[in-house]
Amino acid sequence: MAYINFPRELLDKFCMEAFQKFGFTEKESRIIADVLLMSDDFGIESHGMQRLVRYHKGIESGLIKVDAKPEVVFETPISAVIDAHSAMGQLVGHQAMQMAIEKAKTSGVGIVSVKNSNHYGIAGYYARLAMEQGLIGFSSTNSEAIMVPTFGKKAMLGSNPIAVSAPADPYPFFFDASTTVVTRGKLEMYNKMDKPIPTGWAVNKAGESSNSANEVLGNIKAHEGGGIVPLGGDTELLGSHKGYGYGMLCELFSSILSQGMTSAHTMQNGFSGICHGFMAINPAYFGDPEQIKAHFSTYLNELRQSPKADGAERIYTHGEKEMEAIKKVQKEGVPVNENTVKEMVDMAEYLGMDVKAYFGDFKASNSNFKSSY
Amino acid sequence: MAYINFPRELLDKFCMEAFQKFGFTEKESRIIADVLLMSDDFGIESHGMQRLVRYHKGIESGLIKVDAKPEVVFETPISAVIDAHSAMGQLVGHQAMQMAIEKAKTSGVGIVSVKNSNHYGIAGYYARLAMEQGLIGFSSTNSEAIMVPTFGKKAMLGSNPIAVSAPADPYPFFFDASTTVVTRGKLEMYNKMDKPIPTGWAVNKAGESSNSANEVLGNIKAHEGGGIVPLGGDTELLGSHKGYGYGMLCELFSSILSQGMTSAHTMQNGFSGICHGFMAINPAYFGDPEQIKAHFSTYLNELRQSPKADGAERIYTHGEKEMEAIKKVQKEGVPVNENTVKEMVDMAEYLGMDVKAYFGDFKASNSNFKSSY
Repeated sequence: MAYINFPRELLDKFCMEAFQKFGFTEKESRIIADVLLMSDDFGIESHGMQRLVRYHKGIESGLIKVDAKPEVVFETPISAVIDAHSAMGQLVGHQAMQMAIEKAKTSGVGIVSVKNSNHYGIAGYYARLAMEQGLIGFSSTNSEAIMVPTFGKKAMLGSNPIAVSAPADPYPFFFDASTTVVTRGKLEMYNKMDKPIPTGWAVNKAGESSNSANEVLGNIKAHEGGGIVPLGGDTELLGSHKGYGYGMLCELFSSILSQGMTSAHTMQNGFSGICHGFMAINPAYFGDPEQIKAHFSTYLNELRQSPKADGAERIYTHGEKEMEAIKKVQKEGVPVNENTVKEMVDMAEYLGMDVKAYFGDFKASNSNFKSSY
Repeated sequence: MAYINFPRELLDKFCMEAFQKFGFTEKESRIIADVLLMSDDFGIESHGMQRLVRYHKGIESGLIKVDAKPEVVFETPISAVIDAHSAMGQLVGHQAMQMAIEKAKTSGVGIVSVKNSNHYGIAGYYARLAMEQGLIGFSSTNSEAIMVPTFGKKAMLGSNPIAVSAPADPYPFFFDASTTVVTRGKLEMYNKMDKPIPTGWAVNKAGESSNSANEVLGNIKAHEGGGIVPLGGDTELLGSHKGYGYGMLCELFSSILSQGMTSAHTMQNGFSGICHGFMAINPAYFGDPEQIKAHFSTYLNELRQSPKADGAERIYTHGEKEMEAIKKVQKEGVPVNENTVKEMVDMAEYLGMDVKAYFGDFKASNSNFKSSY
């Protein structure tokens, strides 16, 4: 499966036009495009352009309500619960994290739990919003059940990522990871590449290890059992119960505090019901924020400078790879899988966009694609 | 290696007497004994009686200052930083979590970060203190460096456990796990049992997989490299960077917000410097706490009732095994490894306690031990 490199600006323009055609305002489309492109910027292909088709389908099927007005149903100086009323996840996610940030600025901490939302893209986007304001940001979301609990064979938790971002020099700390061993997005990517998935990632509906992304994704969609295993694998020996536990931590902040749908109930009967949790902590409520940042930066640097394993060239701290990925994208553009490009072409046609302007003669001659944009 | 079952009351009395002999007040000894025995109650042998020798040595060597007066060096309605001044970890831990609880009751959330402390026992003890007050409790601690970062070969992070506890029926949620694949305590236990450790737990000083607990523990103590790998193993394929990331989350709450020692600097030159982080969140700041508890209990029950993997008999939710372990201890007593009993006998002799009253003729005839207590 070949990749085509697009200038970042072209993809941005594509997203801006597409989401406005779907009925979002320019400001709303800006947020959605930013979330999607941050993923591609960071080299997280699974949550970037390749996710467009799911949003397209979600809007078409009514899972995502373009005109929804999220409602704050509970609020205190340090907390809030928002009912998203099936809004686009990125929009209510952005709103919720902004509330958490304001609360953290005035009260030291802000925790906002959201129910009845939709997929919100990469969790880390929201954690970074707080980091950019000098705060420590946390973001988490449940999702359609894909994680099989330890000793189980039916998916009962989502990929349930937890993202954390905090100010540091020369790179901010940026940790964003599913509590499953891998994300569903990674399986989708392997599926598009027709590549077998490594052993230890997923189980089939009988609860046995599977190397077929297609089989596992099919079972998840059909609710036929099986799924992705927690971080730590499928036995307690290497810590399966720990990944399962971090997945529960995500549910606490997202579906439990908001009294929304837990993962196993979401994405059924034409309703999404996905829940998010956000937290911002103000370091100024613990000491001098600049000193705290310097202290953290020192530790991150010590980690990077510590002795490397035989055969390894460097030790990364979380967020460093993302900073390097951005540089690559700025230089070489965003690599997009041909299958994803096909989906984008379909989406553009559905929306009555000028396909040729973005994708040239891609449809007529796949391999000789050259954008005329 | 044989185990001897002790009545729980005997071990409690032993701890109460021993810690008072070390110079702690009765009230302080009560807290320390409670933390240690909760671990044995829960079947977490590694952090119960088998840890006594480390506290003994810590007090003897001056790492732990019996008379230390922890000092609140920064405080707001939602936060505090405490300098423990080398106090016993359990005591400053208890004090810090009580502060977090009070803040959560009056302001919705309390976050307390502690520096210059010592080992505080199981992280979950403190999270449970909050849960018992109807709050969601979090507790985390760094430790002497034992975790080798992804692509590294020198331990730079501690076992860095994160514990979470929240009210639920019929069992509270209780999650307490190191962010390494296993704890150092577990290696100590395998060492005492002279049992090889499973592949995938630890690496030697060259960064290669090791099955010898003795070798790995020796290297850690001598700062010769190697250590335990993060949850997720030693490569990114199964998520090593994720366990490493959760370990950093622990550092943020413990050593970073308090501006204390990060793991790689603790336990050197006769100084502990260990840091803890505590958080309590009041569910009443998000809705009706009883409804939130009921909602959570329903989900936990759904998890337990979900289809089992072929060959598995049940699915646990976190905290359930601990509740069953308590019942076993109440019926059968606390099983203590003979090596640990030897250490307890040494400790009793050192403190001038009536060894025979607790351990009978254990020293003279190991295998025919019968307490005359």
